Amino acid sequence: MAKVYKIGIDIGGTNTVVGIIDNNNEILAYDSIKTQEYSLVHKFAEALLECIKRLSKPYCVLENLKGVGIGVPNGNFFDGSIANAPNLPWHGVINIKKVFEDCFKTPVIITNDAKAAALGEMLFGSAKGVKDFIMLTLGTGVGSGFVVGGRVLYGHNGLAGELGHTTYIPEGRYCSCGKKGCLEAYASASGVVKTAKELLAQKPTASILRNKPSLSSKDIAKAASDNDMIAIETLDKTARILALKLADCVALTAPEKIILFGGLSGAGNAFINPLRKYFDMFLLDCYKTKVSIELSALKGNDAAILGAASLLDL
Amino acid sequence: MAKVYKIGIDIGGTNTVVGIIDNNNEILAYDSIKTQEYSLVHKFAEALLECIKRLSKPYCVLENLKGVGIGVPNGNFFDGSIANAPNLPWHGVINIKKVFEDCFKTPVIITNDAKAAALGEMLFGSAKGVKDFIMLTLGTGVGSGFVVGGRVLYGHNGLAGELGHTTYIPEGRYCSCGKKGCLEAYASASGVVKTAKELLAQKPTASILRNKPSLSSKDIAKAASDNDMIAIETLDKTARILALKLADCVALTAPEKIILFGGLSGAGNAFINPLRKYFDMFLLDCYKTKVSIELSALKGNDAAILGAASLLDL
Repeated sequence: MAKVYKIGIDIGGTNTVVGIIDNNNEILAYDSIKTQEYSLVHKFAEALLECIKRLSKPYCVLENLKGVGIGVPNGNFFDGSIANAPNLPWHGVINIKKVFEDCFKTPVIITNDAKAAALGEMLFGSAKGVKDFIMLTLGTGVGSGFVVGGRVLYGHNGLAGELGHTTYIPEGRYCSCGKKGCLEAYASASGVVKTAKELLAQKPTASILRNKPSLSSKDIAKAASDNDMIAIETLDKTARILALKLADCVALTAPEKIILFGGLSGAGNAFINPLRKYFDMFLLDCYKTKVSIELSALKGNDAAILGAASLLDL
Repeated sequence: MAKVYKIGIDIGGTNTVVGIIDNNNEILAYDSIKTQEYSLVHKFAEALLECIKRLSKPYCVLENLKGVGIGVPNGNFFDGSIANAPNLPWHGVINIKKVFEDCFKTPVIITNDAKAAALGEMLFGSAKGVKDFIMLTLGTGVGSGFVVGGRVLYGHNGLAGELGHTTYIPEGRYCSCGKKGCLEAYASASGVVKTAKELLAQKPTASILRNKPSLSSKDIAKAASDNDMIAIETLDKTARILALKLADCVALTAPEKIILFGGLSGAGNAFINPLRKYFDMFLLDCYKTKVSIELSALKGNDAAILGAASLLDL
């Protein structure tokens, strides 16, 4: 069988990762660029094309390329657009499918990054053979992809699955989407930092987070693993909020499992233990102890890269 | 073509309605019984069988019967059970498919009442040709049926769509399901009465609801249409809570429309106007003015009766 390659791309608010994928759905090579360094989307596409060319050379990928699958926050599988993506540097409504096809000269399929990751988990990861599950991607934003009855839930406009923009508190923190009190304003990387700063301001507790010139969610995860009480309380509060909203999602969509990827999911037990505890507390009786929260078993961005590229096989 | 009949039954917390349905999906005759009068489920089945026999006589239905489709709160399409249904008189886990088949001596299919109504709306009502919508049934409880990509959302265990038991306030009112702060504790018939009683206790405002020996959600709807300020505020508060949770559902499942049936949906503009106003306020920008809230266009319990019976045609 002739070699046919696919390229999968996972665009994140911070990093964008490119992977070259062979016939056997093995990722042969990766590269990445910093998303925020490109204020113009066509310059970003050109930078990705350079990546692709560099990665492709040893494998003659470009001569045998099926196409490029891209997962991107706010990406719309139906029309290939991104619309007012708050965590990306390109504003308004952009047909990025066209931007990339014009640049790459090959077929491009766009989907939401969390939906791409859900597809990847279903085909190659923790959700093989699972027909109902939720993929949650924690990072610059809070993304989610729902699989129901073995199919990705798109809704009538392709935009279903925005768990990050469901409301935790109606009059809560401002969210980047323009609403108030969204889950994302609490469980995103910047939301976690805000919670830590609030706790530092409220409490006299000693903390290695105090007086840091700039604080990141990674600092907080690290401090929690070093038993810093403010960091532990920050993760506990965040876990409780996320657990409440996940329990709502279980009541609505009855998944078998929830798979976490990115951001706080790397914070270890200081996050996952309270998340599981509160989740079980908020679940309806018929789900208690029956719906698992698992970490993605695929490494790095593989779920989203493989999932986005798998759309080329449909 | 020989006549073939189906029977559709909508079991509610208060009334249970039976309909005889012909080849053309016309409901030829109805009867109803009071659900709460039967503390034993097999006595309830026997009473329904008497209904069916009485209704069937003029049409010779029993000789040409395809089967019985039943929509019931907590009904599980997958296994024919109801499990710990808080608004029904029969407790624990009951295989009611078996109870009814033993009694009726004909095939019985069970589903959740709101999912039955969703099917009915999709086949014969306001959602003809609509592939993504939410059916909301307001009554003794708050039921919901989600249709995504043209299919009823069941989830891995058949129990998806429990919007009524998603959380409005984590430390809020006790709900009949055992949790605290569920939407149902605010938007069900008894929840609305509680809100009115709270407002009556808090405010000195004159109200025709004051000092009524017993207060029902119908009294409140009627008072609101008579411009009673406490009743109007009760419906406004309820509408705001429901709107918030419906906007969350839109972010998650991206429906084209939401269809309301039962209870407060009959309260007219004093409920539907604030519901639409708050809904639009809580929606993500990309949905504002684009997702309609409509009342069921089918009369009485027809959506659930026709929807439940339609399961016999699968």
